[in-house]
Amino acid sequence: MANAIDFYFDFSSPYGYLASTKIEAIAARHARRVSWRPFLIGALYKQLGYMPLEQPGKRAYLLHDVPRSARAMGVKLSFPPSFPEALIAPARAVYWIADQNPEVAGAFAAAAFRAYWSEGRKLADPAVVAELAAAQGFAKETVLAALNDPAVKDRLKAETDAAIANHVFGSPFIVIDGEAFWGADRLDQVENWLATGGW
Amino acid sequence: MANAIDFYFDFSSPYGYLASTKIEAIAARHARRVSWRPFLIGALYKQLGYMPLEQPGKRAYLLHDVPRSARAMGVKLSFPPSFPEALIAPARAVYWIADQNPEVAGAFAAAAFRAYWSEGRKLADPAVVAELAAAQGFAKETVLAALNDPAVKDRLKAETDAAIANHVFGSPFIVIDGEAFWGADRLDQVENWLATGGW
Repeated sequence: MANAIDFYFDFSSPYGYLASTKIEAIAARHARRVSWRPFLIGALYKQLGYMPLEQPGKRAYLLHDVPRSARAMGVKLSFPPSFPEALIAPARAVYWIADQNPEVAGAFAAAAFRAYWSEGRKLADPAVVAELAAAQGFAKETVLAALNDPAVKDRLKAETDAAIANHVFGSPFIVIDGEAFWGADRLDQVENWLATGGW
Repeated sequence: MANAIDFYFDFSSPYGYLASTKIEAIAARHARRVSWRPFLIGALYKQLGYMPLEQPGKRAYLLHDVPRSARAMGVKLSFPPSFPEALIAPARAVYWIADQNPEVAGAFAAAAFRAYWSEGRKLADPAVVAELAAAQGFAKETVLAALNDPAVKDRLKAETDAAIANHVFGSPFIVIDGEAFWGADRLDQVENWLATGGW
């Protein structure tokens, strides 16, 4: 069986959201599965000593380019008033859900992205995360308990460290059989790579 | 007459080169002219306090992504052994040539990009710049003298300052009627914007 596509992202990344709306369909067209791999981009930026949004020109551009790209891609999006913010609970939940039932981890992650980026939900709130997990068949109390489990917290830290060690330096970051693609604007190349095996 | 498309770039930018191979054809399809606007990206990065190539992960990715994107775009490219380096003489030459004969400034700039990125020429060398300008009808001695003219040097400094003041923060950076697009991976949007007037 072909390797899964590794889809690295942070829920607070707008380009991660844009890519999240397309990646499952792209993978399905080429008989691949998607491994949804959230990480904490704040930890990455801290290590790099670089915060893109602290550059006024780049920040203004991003706030304009993201909705423009969303419209071009036919994706509904509005910037949450709280952007940017750390979104830790949903990232923890993805790994916990994947351990319980890997079949629904992707559906949960895609729904969590939509909840934050197009439905105005407060995704930093564990109660919202538990509601979204409930839609995938999990009891809210169990999810809330898991989000506070030190092992679940450590798992996200370890996954973030592993992503950084694997040279992930932005979101989204897509790896196909060791071939890395950075950015929602590489989705065309991702699809071509899957179709052709590379060039 | 429709506004020219402002094409901001640094000759040392590989993504600037990729875009340079397409921008004139895109503009021509929509009855636009291209205003080739080199600037010194080193001055920009100094002001931002950010050097992308100093990040090992991003540097390794760029060295892999650029040739991969070039192959995807059908563009011949090989990294010059001296990359990255400041390419000041050709940038000065573009503005000087544009003042002498604006009709050939774009052809000179595109040829200079190719000379550096696909023909192994030492573009930092004023003698090479003079040869490339000679192909556009200028006497080499006149070009070499112009490259040392304090007014020509000041012009590039002023254009770089103006680009930064206009919120240019990378290369290539394309502006259509005030609408900004950053990166060779925005060429599809650039073409669609020209075709539709925006969305």
